[in-house]
Amino acid sequence: MLTNIFIIAITAEAMSGALAAGRRNMDLFGVALISFITALGGGTVRDMLLGNYPVTWTQHPLYIYLTIGAGLATILLARFIHRLNQIFLVLDSMGLIAFTIIGCNVALKLGYDTPVVIMSGMTTGIFGGILRDIMCNRTPQVLRHELYASVSLVVAVVYLTLMSLGVSHGVNTWGTFFFGLLLRLSAIRWKLSLPVFSYSPGRWGD
Amino acid sequence: MLTNIFIIAITAEAMSGALAAGRRNMDLFGVALISFITALGGGTVRDMLLGNYPVTWTQHPLYIYLTIGAGLATILLARFIHRLNQIFLVLDSMGLIAFTIIGCNVALKLGYDTPVVIMSGMTTGIFGGILRDIMCNRTPQVLRHELYASVSLVVAVVYLTLMSLGVSHGVNTWGTFFFGLLLRLSAIRWKLSLPVFSYSPGRWGD
Amino acid sequence: MLTNIFIIAITAEAMSGALAAGRRNMDLFGVALISFITALGGGTVRDMLLGNYPVTWTQHPLYIYLTIGAGLATILLARFIHRLNQIFLVLDSMGLIAFTIIGCNVALKLGYDTPVVIMSGMTTGIFGGILRDIMCNRTPQVLRHELYASVSLVVAVVYLTLMSLGVSHGVNTWGTFFFGLLLRLSAIRWKLSLPVFSYSPGRWGD
Repeated sequence: MLTNIFIIAITAEAMSGALAAGRRNMDLFGVALISFITALGGGTVRDMLLGNYPVTWTQHPLYIYLTIGAGLATILLARFIHRLNQIFLVLDSMGLIAFTIIGCNVALKLGYDTPVVIMSGMTTGIFGGILRDIMCNRTPQVLRHELYASVSLVVAVVYLTLMSLGVSHGVNTWGTFFFGLLLRLSAIRWKLSLPVFSYSPGRWGD
Repeated sequence: MLTNIFIIAITAEAMSGALAAGRRNMDLFGVALISFITALGGGTVRDMLLGNYPVTWTQHPLYIYLTIGAGLATILLARFIHRLNQIFLVLDSMGLIAFTIIGCNVALKLGYDTPVVIMSGMTTGIFGGILRDIMCNRTPQVLRHELYASVSLVVAVVYLTLMSLGVSHGVNTWGTFFFGLLLRLSAIRWKLSLPVFSYSPGRWGD
Repeated sequence: MLTNIFIIAITAEAMSGALAAGRRNMDLFGVALISFITALGGGTVRDMLLGNYPVTWTQHPLYIYLTIGAGLATILLARFIHRLNQIFLVLDSMGLIAFTIIGCNVALKLGYDTPVVIMSGMTTGIFGGILRDIMCNRTPQVLRHELYASVSLVVAVVYLTLMSLGVSHGVNTWGTFFFGLLLRLSAIRWKLSLPVFSYSPGRWGD
């Protein structure tokens, strides 16, 4: 079930990458690369951080084709995307949550401590989007808008809490998934966001 | 033979890094660092992605000295560089292709599947330039101008195809090298480029 | 002793990250993430470069809490920070030097050659700040202002020289530490900086 959502998720993330590349007037290759990195970059950074070799996508060529294909297809679909806005937001949210749960599972299997498991989940969930924004030369969006990265954090904490309470794997996965989706969609609907820290330059660290 | 071209290649890439650092008014240390990263960053990212430890340059201190030296020498040569433009373009193209072939060989030795071998070649070929641009706070140039990243892709595919057809290693390396060089120089000469995807912001992924 | 300074150092670095995030109007999560990456990113990049798994902070959850806590506390302290300017500059300098010495020790233990040991020290010293600036979409400051990255280089070289001369570990660590601190504070006091390389765009590598 998580694998199915993962497939949907990397497709949605790849499309978000393609749109970001399009805003920078990149060529087809740039679109393909940014799509790939947006979709699979979070898991790649996680695997490199945790020393989890071989990196996941190197064992699944399908993921490479899928993300690049989705990115290039986005070029054809771009004119309709504003109409599909709501669907994309849901797919993207599903991706965020599935990525987070998968990332937690990877670190758990490797025997890392709880705080590292949580950071593994969050890294998987949000780092693709961060890499996308770095490659497109803009400040990471996931750190400035409606609850996004924090949904990833909450999802990881809920997932691990239910697990420690002995909730069965299937119930935990589904329960956490829908809870996270509800949280993220509520954040979008009512524009929930964390307080922002605004600081004007002083001398130090400037 | 590939080693000789590699030496030329990292020198040319280091100089391209130094010029980019100069455009950002970096100090000597910045010039040295960006030169090093531009020349050896692609191979470093490849080694870290594939879990190929120890990372290549850590076993070859000469590469460190060479790239940093080339970067610093560029400061003295900068005023003549526009006259040497054509030579640099050729050296840079040789580097792109040599890097790509070397990157394919590394992944082949590690036993990765064909799609990963191709991505290893491309990563080695283009990621130094991408890191250079990220460190200099600009959108990666290799994804926006004349065929560059796509030459790397074509070179990797041709190299692997000839290999699978049983062409001898030496013939394959030379043949692919000159084919790639011809392709890249043609792209520069006739300003060949991939179609560009331009997209104006909508709500999603914004 | 180095551990104590390390604790101070990651706290100071985390606060520098929080201020940079505040300049980009990031939310609380962004502040926490940038703080964490600024403080622990240099060591993380070093560990990934050297294949030194598990990455240090994954074995010390305290470092995670400390850097995120320091980052969030900075939000409350921000209005007083310009008054604390001098203190921060000293803490930040102590961090740079402690990070460098620690980074050298890590590579030495892994048996790397001297040039790699030096680069390991510098990576630990300066890459947190570089990642902070990349994530905040600005040109890395450490490559443009008063001697900073070069202090890291000098510290690494002095440390290894004294070691090769048979100076005892304790004396070497303390001596190098105070020498480096003096150098860095002198650079701040008298605005010492490396020559800058300014280059205007030509065709190549553009």
